Amino acid sequence: MPAPDLLAQTFLDELKRHTADPPGVTRDAYGPGEAAAQALLHRHATELGLDVTIDHAGNLYATLPGRDREAPRWIIGSHLDSVPHGGNFDGAAGIAAGLALLADIGRGARMPARAITLMAIRAEESTWFPASYIGSRAAFGLLRPDELALRRSDTGRTLDAHLRESGFDPDRLMGEPPALLPAQVHGFIEVHIEQGPTLVLENKPIGLVSAIAGSFRYREAAILGIYGHSGAVSRKHRSDAVFAFADFVAALDGAWNVLEAAGAHATVTFGEVGTDPELHAFSKVPGEVRFSLDVRSGQTETLDALHRTVAAAAGEIAARRGVTFAFGPLTGSTPALLSTRLGAALAANAQRRGIAHLVMPSGAGHDAAVFAQMGVPTAMVFVRNENGSHNPDEAMRMEDLACARAVLTDLLLS
Amino acid sequence: MPAPDLLAQTFLDELKRHTADPPGVTRDAYGPGEAAAQALLHRHATELGLDVTIDHAGNLYATLPGRDREAPRWIIGSHLDSVPHGGNFDGAAGIAAGLALLADIGRGARMPARAITLMAIRAEESTWFPASYIGSRAAFGLLRPDELALRRSDTGRTLDAHLRESGFDPDRLMGEPPALLPAQVHGFIEVHIEQGPTLVLENKPIGLVSAIAGSFRYREAAILGIYGHSGAVSRKHRSDAVFAFADFVAALDGAWNVLEAAGAHATVTFGEVGTDPELHAFSKVPGEVRFSLDVRSGQTETLDALHRTVAAAAGEIAARRGVTFAFGPLTGSTPALLSTRLGAALAANAQRRGIAHLVMPSGAGHDAAVFAQMGVPTAMVFVRNENGSHNPDEAMRMEDLACARAVLTDLLLS
Repeated sequence: MPAPDLLAQTFLDELKRHTADPPGVTRDAYGPGEAAAQALLHRHATELGLDVTIDHAGNLYATLPGRDREAPRWIIGSHLDSVPHGGNFDGAAGIAAGLALLADIGRGARMPARAITLMAIRAEESTWFPASYIGSRAAFGLLRPDELALRRSDTGRTLDAHLRESGFDPDRLMGEPPALLPAQVHGFIEVHIEQGPTLVLENKPIGLVSAIAGSFRYREAAILGIYGHSGAVSRKHRSDAVFAFADFVAALDGAWNVLEAAGAHATVTFGEVGTDPELHAFSKVPGEVRFSLDVRSGQTETLDALHRTVAAAAGEIAARRGVTFAFGPLTGSTPALLSTRLGAALAANAQRRGIAHLVMPSGAGHDAAVFAQMGVPTAMVFVRNENGSHNPDEAMRMEDLACARAVLTDLLLS
Repeated sequence: MPAPDLLAQTFLDELKRHTADPPGVTRDAYGPGEAAAQALLHRHATELGLDVTIDHAGNLYATLPGRDREAPRWIIGSHLDSVPHGGNFDGAAGIAAGLALLADIGRGARMPARAITLMAIRAEESTWFPASYIGSRAAFGLLRPDELALRRSDTGRTLDAHLRESGFDPDRLMGEPPALLPAQVHGFIEVHIEQGPTLVLENKPIGLVSAIAGSFRYREAAILGIYGHSGAVSRKHRSDAVFAFADFVAALDGAWNVLEAAGAHATVTFGEVGTDPELHAFSKVPGEVRFSLDVRSGQTETLDALHRTVAAAAGEIAARRGVTFAFGPLTGSTPALLSTRLGAALAANAQRRGIAHLVMPSGAGHDAAVFAQMGVPTAMVFVRNENGSHNPDEAMRMEDLACARAVLTDLLLS
């Protein structure tokens, strides 16, 4: 097994200290926390003699030159922001691995065939601004001017204002050519902690990601029935929103089960559910249930199948239970397929080194999806992590991070 | 059909005016609203020459003497309090019918065989104090001293304080013999609006109640799962509280359906349901669902069967879904069987007068349950009512109330 890397450990320890906000860390997008993290990386990259540039959205690029100065470069990296009171590893693990990798290659004086750039991406966590992948989309020129008016959930100030306060230039960001052109990127590989328990439960240090899930989402759905006295409205005369909701969950559960039995992968989540606290009562037939629905899959056809189930179940249940479904706005995204070629190469490296791995979809979104959608050959390496992510209890072992770094180094030097 | 009664109409109109609290009426238990209603009845009863007494809990008794002064008396009546911003008929309809009935009998100079007392009962609505049937239980000496410390939900002041402020004497209420002794009551009949839609949908002006439902209730139940990233925790690794809740609702729904198909009557209501607003998120596997469960039936064996389903389903679902059920405190009551003899007599009266009726259980609780449980032969007459109860849209027709009064008059004079 590869040895844990001292520089990665040092970087993560310093990062934790510089962005501590008990319990956990806070690296607020375009705020002091993220700025401290970026400054720390800037110092380490400079100490390593890397070539550091920063784009108009604040993404940092630390580059080790290659033998062929004209060849499209490798980009490795992840994001440096965190959720409020989050864990130390979500995002930063990929930066730490990249920093260690570049130091390692530089120490070895093995100049790579093409340049390798470590990219520290801004504003990945959508908890701050209501938009996905702000930093990576900005790098490709995909951020829309209207998104500059989005307000940060805690400060209430706009992205435009936050960019300027952080020393960046939204006017040049919108007016100048993008920092990244797909043709100039040979491939993108993101190392990131796994945010679920699969690698822990399957006892594997790393995962190789096959696809980043797309989704369809109803954030503000409701079932409308008719309120009534809990004892006085008989079964046949009820329009009970909770029983209808249970039927709806059961219908999605059944379809999900059938799809997984057939080899598909998906997640179906009703994360927010509730009767109306203003009107509900212990002794009232519930006349309304509000709920959110988040369906994700790496396979478009699986998303389509589950979406058909939503429509069919709602129609059937509405008629049978005497209720109305009001789904509200639909949002979503298409799945991002990652590079099978890069995935196979990483798998071969892992096998050669005797590192157990799992090929798995990512249900969570990542900046890698933006690179994949821009046509850049893209891979992701998940690192085993306990207790989920977005909380102070994230627990990644440095030995596992070293496994990810090793298979990635092999790829970049091959 | 019996003609609508002018006095009943007048009383209900005055009552609405005296206790108006738009939208609807408010007759707060041991507060100004209920006091105004009781005072209005007091005036009308006095004008009719009835003998009026008031017990230490504030229940009013307006009596028309009978030929046999020693014989146990009939009691008719209902409650005069309402929920906040409630409808004008819940409770008061029975008082209006009783007042009209006594005026009618008195006008006819037909002295009844035994005394007939109209009882205006205090504090039936448990929205005010967290206890059932305060007035009727107090009349039978069933109110416990510790219940005097219960606080009214809006004022925060105790029942003891409210009784004193209203001019009643909790010390004498607890220290003296009860106002009512079962042996001195020949029978109790409560006229009350139906609180559900059955009579409207079945097109019958009145219902004769066979039993008042008992119940079992979990007001603060919860299912505990494990929070996780909605996209990152796979199906087989989830402990999803919402899916477990849906399974639980489905299990109760199935058992309820089977019981009703076999001729039983019950209601099953999850009136309050919700994930935790502090911790839930659109993109999190829900780690907790809180819910209330209210199961009612006029049949003890039906309650028992549904309670066994609760236990069995919770055990099975907990194991299968990896969740924990925390049911919290269990409350409930046993069903009150009403008098088949009185019910049959009322049914015969209705048939003779050509008044369509339905024999039905009452899913809602009523003071009549206290009389039945004390061994008093008890009956209830439901009056058709649109739009449910406990809301300003209660809609009872005076023609239908007259039908109830007529079959009741026949019984009291037979």
